[in-house]
Amino acid sequence: MHILVTGANGFIGAALCRRLLELAEQQPQRWPLERLTAVDLSTGALPTHPLLCPMQGSFADSAVLATALATPADLVFHLASVPSGRSESDPALGMAVNVQGTLQLLDRLKAAGTAPRLVFASSIAVYGRPQSLLVTDETAPAPTLSYGAHKVIGEVLVDDYTRRGWVRGCSLRLPGIVARPPEPNGAVSIFLSNLLRELAAGRPFICPTSATATTWLMSLGRCIDNLVHAAQLDVGPRRTFLLPPLRVPLGALAEAIGAEFAVADVGKLMSWQPDPWVEFNFGSYPPVSLPVAEAAGFRSDDSLRALVRAALDGS
Amino acid sequence: MHILVTGANGFIGAALCRRLLELAEQQPQRWPLERLTAVDLSTGALPTHPLLCPMQGSFADSAVLATALATPADLVFHLASVPSGRSESDPALGMAVNVQGTLQLLDRLKAAGTAPRLVFASSIAVYGRPQSLLVTDETAPAPTLSYGAHKVIGEVLVDDYTRRGWVRGCSLRLPGIVARPPEPNGAVSIFLSNLLRELAAGRPFICPTSATATTWLMSLGRCIDNLVHAAQLDVGPRRTFLLPPLRVPLGALAEAIGAEFAVADVGKLMSWQPDPWVEFNFGSYPPVSLPVAEAAGFRSDDSLRALVRAALDGS
Repeated sequence: MHILVTGANGFIGAALCRRLLELAEQQPQRWPLERLTAVDLSTGALPTHPLLCPMQGSFADSAVLATALATPADLVFHLASVPSGRSESDPALGMAVNVQGTLQLLDRLKAAGTAPRLVFASSIAVYGRPQSLLVTDETAPAPTLSYGAHKVIGEVLVDDYTRRGWVRGCSLRLPGIVARPPEPNGAVSIFLSNLLRELAAGRPFICPTSATATTWLMSLGRCIDNLVHAAQLDVGPRRTFLLPPLRVPLGALAEAIGAEFAVADVGKLMSWQPDPWVEFNFGSYPPVSLPVAEAAGFRSDDSLRALVRAALDGS
Repeated sequence: MHILVTGANGFIGAALCRRLLELAEQQPQRWPLERLTAVDLSTGALPTHPLLCPMQGSFADSAVLATALATPADLVFHLASVPSGRSESDPALGMAVNVQGTLQLLDRLKAAGTAPRLVFASSIAVYGRPQSLLVTDETAPAPTLSYGAHKVIGEVLVDDYTRRGWVRGCSLRLPGIVARPPEPNGAVSIFLSNLLRELAAGRPFICPTSATATTWLMSLGRCIDNLVHAAQLDVGPRRTFLLPPLRVPLGALAEAIGAEFAVADVGKLMSWQPDPWVEFNFGSYPPVSLPVAEAAGFRSDDSLRALVRAALDGS
């Protein structure tokens, strides 16, 4: 079994690679891994392992892709993309990587003639700014950033290539995954990860939203569970899923961190200083009702306490 | 004012060109037309007119596009596409024209720096096979043909380029437009136009659906009204509309043709021989509720009788 991961050196990608290597060790019959090709612009976060083949470069570079797929892949996790801020500031790069790169990857998988499995990491950015009172499995995408538009296009392509029998793909819309490492990644939403880490360590935190602001979160570990589940899913007519997030009021998040990590007086450590733009764009997520995604076996974290614990375990 | 129409020689494109030339004559202040560039693979259906500049070739050919837009356009109607059957049988052509061609057109309009108006002809193919009990302004696309997938991608691109201020675009999802000329166009749905024409002429017709099958129709004239309306619409945050169709049971359509054209005994002329595949794909259209599209000024035909009359007037 040859697995390809794009964006393998990222926060999610590196954790996925570690999990895949564990699965290969623990369940060799179900995961008869022969090679894990891990493509990314840098590869420093990747573990050293005899089955892991790090490959430095862009998946959107046809030479890199040709080398990565010289042996056809049985399973591809396509995580790499130019993120939202960069896609706004450099639209040509966003289009080249997120749209043309994804199309090139799909065409190469099609050309192999083996209909490999494909898990495409989409994003809640496809919904744009929160617009509806409830988000369901049927809510239509309405992106308000080019990044979200590119993700919709990727979903539509994965869906059509799957309908044609060229790949066996599905797309997962990822909510905010926590807790990201402290280095800035250019995303405004990084404040959510910072809140978790700072407060758990008993340090004060200035939050750019109100305590009643709501966000959609998932721990890194649960995100990896869902990616691995998707890779084993029988692909039916429904191939695009919002991963069920926990919808979390940030005040309740602070309380849960306090309880889980025995931090005294979290109320005093937290300072709520709402920025209207952040509150609107990152603190107004509506409730979700996702029976289709849940019936397909995708899972949110079990509770807010469990999310906080898992997020700060880094697993 | 320079207007560009792609797919200008088609059933809809040629009627649009005629209407634009009429408007320029009747309302020269509102439509100060200096040139109407009409691009299509052939140009035989286009009228001869001093302002009309027919250009033979594919809009997806960058040399053709460069010539067509040597003078920047103020308004573009992008109607051309590789149709559904052809996009299924020749996916590379469908992708090259419907996706890459549309993207190239958008990039050229962006490069002009004048944010021209753009009306993109999408299709009810974005909904795929009828899947919901009611289609509303909020119904999510779920295409089941590559043609529909390409149209979704076009809509997403038009929307994002408009949000960016690069064009002022909107996308209209066209229902079945009648009555198309009798020559086969490769679309199964041509039987609807044939039904109209044959029955109005008092000739018997074998219909591949039941009399209770329902379809979404619009007369060519009303379709042109809506395209022209879209070109004058102030583009708000909502930029993609299903054009409100009449939902028509085919038995009622036959009755209306009989009444409108004084055809005796239409019940005896019609022979209903449902093909399950046609019935499912072209005869199961659900009701619609489109308050957003209607508030934006898009209109269905006024009545079934009016639709039948307009469809066979060819206007």
